[in-house]
Amino acid sequence: MKLVTLKDGSRDGQLAVVSRDLAQAHFATGIATRMQQVLDDWNFVSPQLEDLYTTLNHGKARHAFAFDARQCMAPLPRAFHWVQVDAYPDAAERMLRALGVEPPAALRETPAVRAAAGDGLLGAHDEARFAATAPAPDFGPQLAVVTGDVEAGTPADRALDGVRLVLLANAWRSGEEAAAAPPAAFAPVAVTPEELGEAWRGGKLQLAIETRLNGRRFSRLDAAAGMRWHFGRLIARAATTRTLGAGAIVGTGPVGARDAADGAGCIAERRAVEAAAGGEPATPWLAFGDTVRVEAFGADGASVFGALEQRVSERDE
Amino acid sequence: MKLVTLKDGSRDGQLAVVSRDLAQAHFATGIATRMQQVLDDWNFVSPQLEDLYTTLNHGKARHAFAFDARQCMAPLPRAFHWVQVDAYPDAAERMLRALGVEPPAALRETPAVRAAAGDGLLGAHDEARFAATAPAPDFGPQLAVVTGDVEAGTPADRALDGVRLVLLANAWRSGEEAAAAPPAAFAPVAVTPEELGEAWRGGKLQLAIETRLNGRRFSRLDAAAGMRWHFGRLIARAATTRTLGAGAIVGTGPVGARDAADGAGCIAERRAVEAAAGGEPATPWLAFGDTVRVEAFGADGASVFGALEQRVSERDE
Repeated sequence: MKLVTLKDGSRDGQLAVVSRDLAQAHFATGIATRMQQVLDDWNFVSPQLEDLYTTLNHGKARHAFAFDARQCMAPLPRAFHWVQVDAYPDAAERMLRALGVEPPAALRETPAVRAAAGDGLLGAHDEARFAATAPAPDFGPQLAVVTGDVEAGTPADRALDGVRLVLLANAWRSGEEAAAAPPAAFAPVAVTPEELGEAWRGGKLQLAIETRLNGRRFSRLDAAAGMRWHFGRLIARAATTRTLGAGAIVGTGPVGARDAADGAGCIAERRAVEAAAGGEPATPWLAFGDTVRVEAFGADGASVFGALEQRVSERDE
Repeated sequence: MKLVTLKDGSRDGQLAVVSRDLAQAHFATGIATRMQQVLDDWNFVSPQLEDLYTTLNHGKARHAFAFDARQCMAPLPRAFHWVQVDAYPDAAERMLRALGVEPPAALRETPAVRAAAGDGLLGAHDEARFAATAPAPDFGPQLAVVTGDVEAGTPADRALDGVRLVLLANAWRSGEEAAAAPPAAFAPVAVTPEELGEAWRGGKLQLAIETRLNGRRFSRLDAAAGMRWHFGRLIARAATTRTLGAGAIVGTGPVGARDAADGAGCIAERRAVEAAAGGEPATPWLAFGDTVRVEAFGADGASVFGALEQRVSERDE
């Protein structure tokens, strides 16, 4: 099924179910009002939402309305746990080599983990506000999963069972310090693994993540091909030493290709490739007024999560 | 006023008000059931809780019951934002010098920030479970504040107005990687700044934080004396580039003294002092079965937040 959180002036928004084709929506009132409620009590609540989803897809939901992605908040607007676990170390290694640094072996053996605050996560059309002084503003398109409760020390294969929802994210970055960037943004629609069908296999999602900068394609990358560790491994890594509570969001870190010729997931990587080719980096960092669009397409060409489309703007100070 | 969250089998627990002397409690049912609700709607909800607090202190609350600190969860058991901003750089500098590293100037100019996941925060009597392989298990006693909404870029003086509640915390640590430690634990009682009276001034809290290891005093440190930056500065630092949502918890990092002779806030610091004195570090890291008690005392000798008392135990793997 597909779930969204609609703006209603509250901090957590209003939970709704959307149809498979993203044309219709229906509030989940009477079942649950907030996404975190669903995650806290998944086994009880999610079957009721599935029923509503089926009814909606059959055109029989009584209070359905046209779905407008611009009314969406992040599917989970406030998360108690938001962490990126880098699943694309090839890209990270390329960046280090371009800086003349030999990548540490640990990078290849264990995915790196970066926790960040989970409040104020951005909706798909919210502005990405950087300070005028923020160094090297950049985007970081990636898939993410929302988990149920995952006990500390859970092995990778069982950790994969903890996946409740799959998301598309753009984790903004600025220089070395992720905290200098605005909070991460999320595409409107959260999708259950079952709904993804054949594209979800082996803990990876077979689809293309396309990033457009001011309307022009920046890259289109196979999310599965360059992913060294599947989501079970990423979740297990985040839960190595501590339990993940229901509603934890685990992102892959910026999508990257195994081979640099296939394109770069972010500006930093492209600049590194340009520098490694002997020249000065030619691709500029993001500037105020730029628009970044991130979207994921299945084999049938359909947009799976809806699009992220954000304007980069200056934060008042 | 003084607020607590009592265990009720749910993830967020049940909000209650406790009397000034910590003898009586009263559920806040009818006003709010969860701490986050209060923070989300502070101006509307907190006056009602203040009324109940006054009634309770006058011995006139109808359904008051004896307060039992062992029934407490962390005051905010799940936080959307939990960050430590190091307010005691003298101790950090001593540790670096003991390792033969000259402290970077930045450490003295700008407090360092460490974000962590906010789910599964521990109650005052919950076990602190480390993996058998966790390096250098250690404690990190400190004060923390819970904020309201604080806009990105808010200056320190105004950021101080964002303090809603003051907490006593123990942020467990393990080696360099905080993520290898169990989640931070919190003393039972959350206290409003007004309730702290004269002890709360200039954005610092005048009290002594005492840490006991297996019943013996490890240290007793003046929380204000060694604090280089007041809470307004710490909040402003955390909000330099991003808005803090209501319910953000900002800790000071482990309490430390300006002068090493006054004692050490954690085992790592004491070992560093021992090493700097020329010998091998004599103080062992925590071992399974150890009990750590952290408590804060006002000038009148009263326990302000109730005690944290946790057993260090081994996590099953």
